[in-house]
Amino acid sequence: MKALRYYDRGHIQLDDVPEPEVGPGELKVEIEWCGICGSDIHEYLGGPISVPVGAPHPYTGVQAPVTLGHEVSAVITEVGEGVDGFDTGERVTVEALLRDDECAQCQAGNHNMCSNLHVYGYSWPGGGGFARYSVIPAYATHKIPASVAPECAALVEPLAVGLHALKQAGFQAGQDALVLGGGPIGLMVTVGLKAAGARTIVVSEPSARRREAAVRAGADRAVDPVSEDLDAALAEVTGGKADVVFEVAGVPASWKSAMSSVRPHGTVCNVAAWEAPVSFNPNHLLFTEARLTGSLGYLGEFADAIALLSDGGLDPSWMVTRTVDLDHAVEDGFDAIVKDRDEFIKVLVRP
Amino acid sequence: MKALRYYDRGHIQLDDVPEPEVGPGELKVEIEWCGICGSDIHEYLGGPISVPVGAPHPYTGVQAPVTLGHEVSAVITEVGEGVDGFDTGERVTVEALLRDDECAQCQAGNHNMCSNLHVYGYSWPGGGGFARYSVIPAYATHKIPASVAPECAALVEPLAVGLHALKQAGFQAGQDALVLGGGPIGLMVTVGLKAAGARTIVVSEPSARRREAAVRAGADRAVDPVSEDLDAALAEVTGGKADVVFEVAGVPASWKSAMSSVRPHGTVCNVAAWEAPVSFNPNHLLFTEARLTGSLGYLGEFADAIALLSDGGLDPSWMVTRTVDLDHAVEDGFDAIVKDRDEFIKVLVRP
Repeated sequence: MKALRYYDRGHIQLDDVPEPEVGPGELKVEIEWCGICGSDIHEYLGGPISVPVGAPHPYTGVQAPVTLGHEVSAVITEVGEGVDGFDTGERVTVEALLRDDECAQCQAGNHNMCSNLHVYGYSWPGGGGFARYSVIPAYATHKIPASVAPECAALVEPLAVGLHALKQAGFQAGQDALVLGGGPIGLMVTVGLKAAGARTIVVSEPSARRREAAVRAGADRAVDPVSEDLDAALAEVTGGKADVVFEVAGVPASWKSAMSSVRPHGTVCNVAAWEAPVSFNPNHLLFTEARLTGSLGYLGEFADAIALLSDGGLDPSWMVTRTVDLDHAVEDGFDAIVKDRDEFIKVLVRP
Repeated sequence: MKALRYYDRGHIQLDDVPEPEVGPGELKVEIEWCGICGSDIHEYLGGPISVPVGAPHPYTGVQAPVTLGHEVSAVITEVGEGVDGFDTGERVTVEALLRDDECAQCQAGNHNMCSNLHVYGYSWPGGGGFARYSVIPAYATHKIPASVAPECAALVEPLAVGLHALKQAGFQAGQDALVLGGGPIGLMVTVGLKAAGARTIVVSEPSARRREAAVRAGADRAVDPVSEDLDAALAEVTGGKADVVFEVAGVPASWKSAMSSVRPHGTVCNVAAWEAPVSFNPNHLLFTEARLTGSLGYLGEFADAIALLSDGGLDPSWMVTRTVDLDHAVEDGFDAIVKDRDEFIKVLVRP
C-alpha cells in the first residue's frame, strides 16, 4: 500500500510499504480520512521534533522513515488477539498520545506527561493515518457513533486538544474568554468555549480569513491585533478584562497581550509551542495573583469531544476547507499549506 | 509624641508629631511592638514605592512624611463613634491592606487587588506603628487572645502573608514543598507548611544563618544553592521534584530553580517582588502543565494566623532576633538591617 512517510526536515514522500500486521491488543483499521495537523507541518518544516530520526525511540524502537498522520476516522478491518468490545466494520478514532506502563506519570494517570512519550503517527510502530491501513492500540481507540459524519470523526483529535485546554484553564460557564490565535486549535478552543457556555468570546487573529472563521466558530468579536487596540476591544465586549486567556499564537506580541488582558485572579493557559523565550516579569503574578498554566494534547477528553459531536449536535465540518487524495497529499496538502497557511483551516487526506 | 517618619528614599527620621485623633469607625491604640518589614527596608533603600511622595494618595489624600510601621501588637485606648465589639484595654493587630468601598475588586472581596490600594503604615491617615499611638480602622482590626504573647502578635501580619501564599498555591497536606529564599517571609511560609502538614520541606538559601533558621522553622533540609546541587538535594529528600515551589527570593537564579524543580502538574507561587524581568519559555507550561501563580499580602488569613498562634500552639517568637526602642530604631533597626541583612530575622521596635 502507499504511505506518506517522514524522513527528515523538508523530506516527506509517498512510499510503497507492506500493510501493517495486527498484534495482540491491537486493531487493524482502514483509514477513511486523516487530517493534516499543525504539528505535522512543524515536523515537516522545523523537525524532527516527534519523529525519531537516526536513532530508535527508547520505548517503541521506531525510527524514520515513519508514516505520518494522527487525526483519523477509520473502520476496523481486523481485531487483534485479546481485544474485547470491538468488531470489524465499526468506525473509530484513536488518541495519539500513547502510554508507557512503566512510567510514573502514566501510572499516575497523566500519560500526556509521559517521560517516554510515544505518539501515534510519529513514533508508534503500526504506522499513521496517511496510508490505507494502520494498526492502532485498542486501549487508545474510541468508537464513533453513526450520527457523526466520517469527516467529523477526523476532527475529534483537535477538538479534544481544545477541550483539554478548557479543562486545564479551569474554564467555567459564564466567564469571559480571550483566544489569542485563530488557527485550527484556536478555533477548536473557540468552539469548545461556545459549547461550554462562555459569556463572551473574543478572538485575536491578524488574518482576515481566520477572523471570519473565528466568528463562525462562536467568537462575539474577532480583533486584528495589528491594526486594532485589543485591550480596548476586549473592554468593549466584556466591560473589562478576560477571566480566561488562551495563548494559541506563541509569539512575543501575543504573550504581551495575554499579560495585559487577564483580569486579577484570572487564568492564562498556554496551548502554543514556542520557538524562543519571552521577557516576563514575575511581578505580574504578584500584582494580579493570576494563574498561568499550560495544556498539552489531551487526557481523557476524547469521550467529551465525541459526545459534543453526537449528542451535543456540534458540527465543525465547515472547518474542512480542502480534501485531497493521498496521491496528491504532499503537493496539494502539505506544500499548499506551507505556501499559504491562512488559505486553509483543516485539510483532510483520503487514503 | 515621637514618630519614625518616611520622607523619601534614604530619608527616615524621628519627628515630634501630635497624637492622632480617633474618628468614626476607628480605634486609637497604643503600640506595644511593631516589626520592621522587608517592605519597609525596600521603601527606605529603593522607594518611594508605597508611600505617596510629592502628591497625595488618590483615595486617602496622605503624602510624605508618613509614620511607617504595619506589623503591630497594640492595645486599644479609645473606641471611635459607631464601633461595636471592641473595648479599651483589648490587645489587637491590624491588616495593613485596606479597602476602598468604591473599587470593583474590593466589592468582589479581593481587596488585596484594590485598584486604589492604600496601606496602613504607608498611605493611611492615622499613622503607622513606629509611634506610641496610632489610629486604625476597626473593620481591619483583629483581637489577639490572651494566650498569644505581644511579640507574637506583631508576627501575625508576616505569618498571614505566608499562609496566603499556601492558599494561593493550593497547598495540600502530604505534598513536597520547596521554598526558594529563607528571609522572614520564606520562614513564615516554611512555618505555615510545617503546620499544614507538608510531607517534606526543602529551603534553598545562600546564607548559612538563614539556613539554620529554616531548619528551626521546619525545613527537612536547607540547601545552599551556590555550593550545592539543589535539584539533586531535592531528589534525595522527595524522591523527585516538588509539588509546590514558593519563589520568595526574586532573582533570576531562583526563577531558574523554580522551573527546574516543579513536578509536572505542580505549582510555582511567586511571593517575591522583582526588580527586573526574567527570560521565560512558555513551553515550560506546555510540557509540564504546571501552574504559576502569585500571592500578594493576604486576604482573610489573619484569623487563621491568630488561631495557629493561640489554639495551634505555634510560637515563632524565636524569629525576633533583636528588639530596639523607638529612639534607636533608625540606627539599630533600619540601618543595622541594611548593613547586614543576614544578621537579623525580625527586628521589633518598642515605641
